Amino acid sequence: MGPATRKTKIDVGILGATGMVGQQFVLQLAGHPWFRTTWLGASQRSEGRRYGDLSWRLSGPMPDEVADLVVEPTVPGRGPALLFSALDASVAGDIERDLAAAGHVVVSNARNHRMDPLVPLLVPEVNADHLALVPAQRQQQGWRGAIVTNPNCSTVFLTMALAALRQFGPSAVTVTTEQATSGAGYPGVASLDLLGNVVPFISGEEDKLESEPRKILGTLTGGRVEPHPVLISAQTTRVPVVNGHTEMISVRLDTKPTGEDVLSAFGSFCGRPQQLGLPTAPARPIVYLREPDRPQPRLDVDRERGMAVFIGRLRPCPVLGYKFVALGHNTVRGAAGAAVLNAELMAADGMLD
Amino acid sequence: MGPATRKTKIDVGILGATGMVGQQFVLQLAGHPWFRTTWLGASQRSEGRRYGDLSWRLSGPMPDEVADLVVEPTVPGRGPALLFSALDASVAGDIERDLAAAGHVVVSNARNHRMDPLVPLLVPEVNADHLALVPAQRQQQGWRGAIVTNPNCSTVFLTMALAALRQFGPSAVTVTTEQATSGAGYPGVASLDLLGNVVPFISGEEDKLESEPRKILGTLTGGRVEPHPVLISAQTTRVPVVNGHTEMISVRLDTKPTGEDVLSAFGSFCGRPQQLGLPTAPARPIVYLREPDRPQPRLDVDRERGMAVFIGRLRPCPVLGYKFVALGHNTVRGAAGAAVLNAELMAADGMLD
Amino acid sequence: MGPATRKTKIDVGILGATGMVGQQFVLQLAGHPWFRTTWLGASQRSEGRRYGDLSWRLSGPMPDEVADLVVEPTVPGRGPALLFSALDASVAGDIERDLAAAGHVVVSNARNHRMDPLVPLLVPEVNADHLALVPAQRQQQGWRGAIVTNPNCSTVFLTMALAALRQFGPSAVTVTTEQATSGAGYPGVASLDLLGNVVPFISGEEDKLESEPRKILGTLTGGRVEPHPVLISAQTTRVPVVNGHTEMISVRLDTKPTGEDVLSAFGSFCGRPQQLGLPTAPARPIVYLREPDRPQPRLDVDRERGMAVFIGRLRPCPVLGYKFVALGHNTVRGAAGAAVLNAELMAADGMLD
Amino acid sequence: MGPATRKTKIDVGILGATGMVGQQFVLQLAGHPWFRTTWLGASQRSEGRRYGDLSWRLSGPMPDEVADLVVEPTVPGRGPALLFSALDASVAGDIERDLAAAGHVVVSNARNHRMDPLVPLLVPEVNADHLALVPAQRQQQGWRGAIVTNPNCSTVFLTMALAALRQFGPSAVTVTTEQATSGAGYPGVASLDLLGNVVPFISGEEDKLESEPRKILGTLTGGRVEPHPVLISAQTTRVPVVNGHTEMISVRLDTKPTGEDVLSAFGSFCGRPQQLGLPTAPARPIVYLREPDRPQPRLDVDRERGMAVFIGRLRPCPVLGYKFVALGHNTVRGAAGAAVLNAELMAADGMLD
Repeated sequence: MGPATRKTKIDVGILGATGMVGQQFVLQLAGHPWFRTTWLGASQRSEGRRYGDLSWRLSGPMPDEVADLVVEPTVPGRGPALLFSALDASVAGDIERDLAAAGHVVVSNARNHRMDPLVPLLVPEVNADHLALVPAQRQQQGWRGAIVTNPNCSTVFLTMALAALRQFGPSAVTVTTEQATSGAGYPGVASLDLLGNVVPFISGEEDKLESEPRKILGTLTGGRVEPHPVLISAQTTRVPVVNGHTEMISVRLDTKPTGEDVLSAFGSFCGRPQQLGLPTAPARPIVYLREPDRPQPRLDVDRERGMAVFIGRLRPCPVLGYKFVALGHNTVRGAAGAAVLNAELMAADGMLD
Repeated sequence: MGPATRKTKIDVGILGATGMVGQQFVLQLAGHPWFRTTWLGASQRSEGRRYGDLSWRLSGPMPDEVADLVVEPTVPGRGPALLFSALDASVAGDIERDLAAAGHVVVSNARNHRMDPLVPLLVPEVNADHLALVPAQRQQQGWRGAIVTNPNCSTVFLTMALAALRQFGPSAVTVTTEQATSGAGYPGVASLDLLGNVVPFISGEEDKLESEPRKILGTLTGGRVEPHPVLISAQTTRVPVVNGHTEMISVRLDTKPTGEDVLSAFGSFCGRPQQLGLPTAPARPIVYLREPDRPQPRLDVDRERGMAVFIGRLRPCPVLGYKFVALGHNTVRGAAGAAVLNAELMAADGMLD
Repeated sequence: MGPATRKTKIDVGILGATGMVGQQFVLQLAGHPWFRTTWLGASQRSEGRRYGDLSWRLSGPMPDEVADLVVEPTVPGRGPALLFSALDASVAGDIERDLAAAGHVVVSNARNHRMDPLVPLLVPEVNADHLALVPAQRQQQGWRGAIVTNPNCSTVFLTMALAALRQFGPSAVTVTTEQATSGAGYPGVASLDLLGNVVPFISGEEDKLESEPRKILGTLTGGRVEPHPVLISAQTTRVPVVNGHTEMISVRLDTKPTGEDVLSAFGSFCGRPQQLGLPTAPARPIVYLREPDRPQPRLDVDRERGMAVFIGRLRPCPVLGYKFVALGHNTVRGAAGAAVLNAELMAADGMLD
Repeated sequence: MGPATRKTKIDVGILGATGMVGQQFVLQLAGHPWFRTTWLGASQRSEGRRYGDLSWRLSGPMPDEVADLVVEPTVPGRGPALLFSALDASVAGDIERDLAAAGHVVVSNARNHRMDPLVPLLVPEVNADHLALVPAQRQQQGWRGAIVTNPNCSTVFLTMALAALRQFGPSAVTVTTEQATSGAGYPGVASLDLLGNVVPFISGEEDKLESEPRKILGTLTGGRVEPHPVLISAQTTRVPVVNGHTEMISVRLDTKPTGEDVLSAFGSFCGRPQQLGLPTAPARPIVYLREPDRPQPRLDVDRERGMAVFIGRLRPCPVLGYKFVALGHNTVRGAAGAAVLNAELMAADGMLD
């Protein structure tokens, strides 16, 4: 099937457009074939200022197309119908709810509504069918709009790996993450804490990584998601890396597949984004690297425009069965890129018209 | 019991004295109350040169007491009876064997003889009784000398943690390490490989970490060591840290102790080095840090002169039972300091007279 | 004037294709509109091996178009007429000479022939006219081929800045560089030397930076280059940066221009690559950044595909007159990209037909 | 002359005791033979809290002797007569003035009063005689106490180097600094700004480095300091180093000494702290390192307990005459250690009795 196309572009806005994830949204949407960024929201400090005059912290220049936009206040009912949310969790809960009530479709990267039973927590290759929660959400909340979320950055990569192995009955997972500093926003982690150091603690991260994959891998029945029974134990650490979370994963697979079975499952894994040819969908959602010392964040994280998960080092685990290493780009596939892909899926499914 | 004392110092030599671990031996032995470095060996390139004229790569100046020693060739039968080996594994096997045959006691950091059934693989707090292998070693090999080894750096820290928990029946462990670059020697890892990056592969390291602890925790019966049955699965990674290996550990304990039991076991753990008051023994071999984000290599690794293991973040593991973070100084407690403590134990036991 | 075009591609080879600069040549030439890489040379260790099976150390995947090339031995007279040299200085001198004698045009990044009075040391925006040395070179050496060189990485950026100011009579310069580790090749600088450290010494670098710009800025008269009289004092240091050399420059300008004059000179600087519309020429060779804390290597070095020099922080220098900060991409504009631009200039001038 | 001794310890307090420099003061004063820390002040957020319960960010544990002190509010007239100030410049100006008025001797690391004509800006090896400003300060301000300051961190190292060369008539200096992140306090520089990056801008730093040395090297005549006429041009940059500022210095010396003269001047440089045998004075204030690639922050900054300046790489500068590299520990000799040495000098001179 060829790539999905659209005749006219959809106007979109970005909530929290001045933060690290907000800036990554700007990049992901620059030159997008379906979406056009026409509205940027941020905190009062930046309101009324030209976006091009604000601090830009990503590598390379700011895209020209947003430089002349003026940062707007967030008023439910105003601005584009489709809003990407890069809001901080300290404020996202209420604002997103109010926006949805006022008719906006909020495609959010914030954690606040992820575990809400009525809100899809989406990885389009894994659980595109969970979008079916939206009608129930609208009905029960009385909203004209909607909230759709993407998972925590670390969750995305683990979940895609587990989704490829779902056929083998994953029942237990231990995972240790080595997470990049861009995941903590700006200013985020102090350089004194990270230079030549690792910090074996990221607030709230282990809880998310132990619960979100179970919802995403869960089964939609009777209008609700039954969580997948896999047990997950996470240890999350911060390392002196700019972009890219690396995950050391051990997994118990109840059907005892061979190593070749597992490799084949990784290699053939794909989903609706690939079937629909969504604009930013990676050709292969999982890229298995055969070199013995890969994936590595500095060398691999930007491949496939940061939208794939890179896996390597599959080998037997004496305790659980198999172990391997996964890597993903935390601000792209783990945040802004994930949300944009969610919106593309919704557009292709006619949910944004 | 008061600290052990000696009337006269024992002359010691260092094999491989110009490498990173060799230099760390020099530091550990500077001003040592029992040992006096009188002999330094290195490869032909350095032979005949004044040690003080060679490159010194550790922080701070070289100790004065070795600067005027001239680097010697290694000739079995020459030099001090007690030799610390910082030799590279590519040459250590035969040289150490020849030295032991010629009457030297070789206290080695090299991996070559660690798993030899006749060679003690020693962590003095854990298996001091394994020194009883030495007489059998001498008899079977026909050696007047002996070889005694310390484990791989990562092994030391994991094993000390497991030894404290041995009473609870540890039966399965998953561990991910984040290892410092000093563990790879000099020049070791290229800066291009490590700046802003992690490398999820260290050659041979996972094998050692999965096998050595079982020997150390094993039971000496009938002149041989029966390995401990614990299953270990390791994922070892290199991170941009100078000194200090951090380990994220999950463990299944068959007797299901409470968290308080585990904390108490860590806090009260000690062994013969503490009982004997060995000169470089840490007062507490395991230091539990209660701050939620510790231990951290840059902040904690030099505490207790690098001879203790620092543990933190004990919490339930949904898969195996408990999880926690351990940290140790890889070139001190994980290498040179470990060997020196081994020699102190042997001296206190009258094995060096 | 529109961009230069060509009807057929020119076959090119890369000498030293497996090193860091060699790999960067591969990237620069991938998809190049005028050149097509058909030949890769490297040391005996790699001869006969498929390039795609060798280690690739740059971010992102190896370009497909070279993966199936087999690494060839270097034999004068064999392979393409046009060869890019990424050879190490320890071997480049004789090999390049032999190749030129056998009819190859060697466009070299090696330092060996740079200061040879008959060899152009080229920055196309600055001294394109120095290509006129080539006929004399051929005649005096009796070569059918030729050697053309680009400068040391740090030299390029300083020289482009000085070239823009040449009209103001630069007579004295102090420059301190903070150089990226990719400039040292692979394995290059050990991570133990660079993590959390700076090394205030790069072998031979200060000499190059003090002499090469004088040749490049020099005047071609009577078949030889009269060096520019500017005095340069360099202090070169290595810092924990992957790509991008930053230079803190003070300069005495004899005509005492105003700050606006200097800014205007930077902004309007261009040369033959821009006039000819060479394929990889940056639109503006010097980009002045007005933010007070720029340029910064991580944020700016990849702009303009790494082919421009980024300058910022122009301000009065109490000692020499003006000071500013310059940044360039050391393996692109400072090495492989510089050589490719040299070859483009030669092609546009009909020297490769 | 033997080391100065005292019979009883002087009680001291630390203003701003919870910041990075405040914590460094705690370390410098732990076990000090003359001073005893009995009072700790900090902002309202920490008031009333046990110091041992607050966050400690330096390597190694907090000294036991301060753990039970309770953080106090700053009230002029209360607390010890001698106060070390690690206050932030945003508040130090008024508070220090009020404290001096109320009778405290404030030995300050803050920048606010450094350039005040009545306030000594002290490097004890260089301008101990400037303490003679104190009586005039007291008289003109009507204070019973006093304010004495130490310079900006980068200033200390440059000024000590220039003081050693004062005999040769230094008339012009260009200096580029590569400064550690600990100099920016905590949280200070974001890790996203510093990982694999350099930032060529530190707010206000170049001004200090161009003006403070002239006051310190100035001549006290008629109750005021006549600034030294040397012209200084500074470029200050932040690099990914934890501790230690490295400075690349070029200097014009009017009397044209030989290189041996300069080396001899560095080697023989000393001052009143050495003559008086002050407790924390380094034996040699300047240590010249002869290795071609030194000093380096990670390897050298902790030598001499961080109280000396390390110089290396003396060589001719084609523009100004000589160039060399200097290194100092920014939070020790460049901040807390500098202030403690100032207080020791005052104590030895009877100004604290």
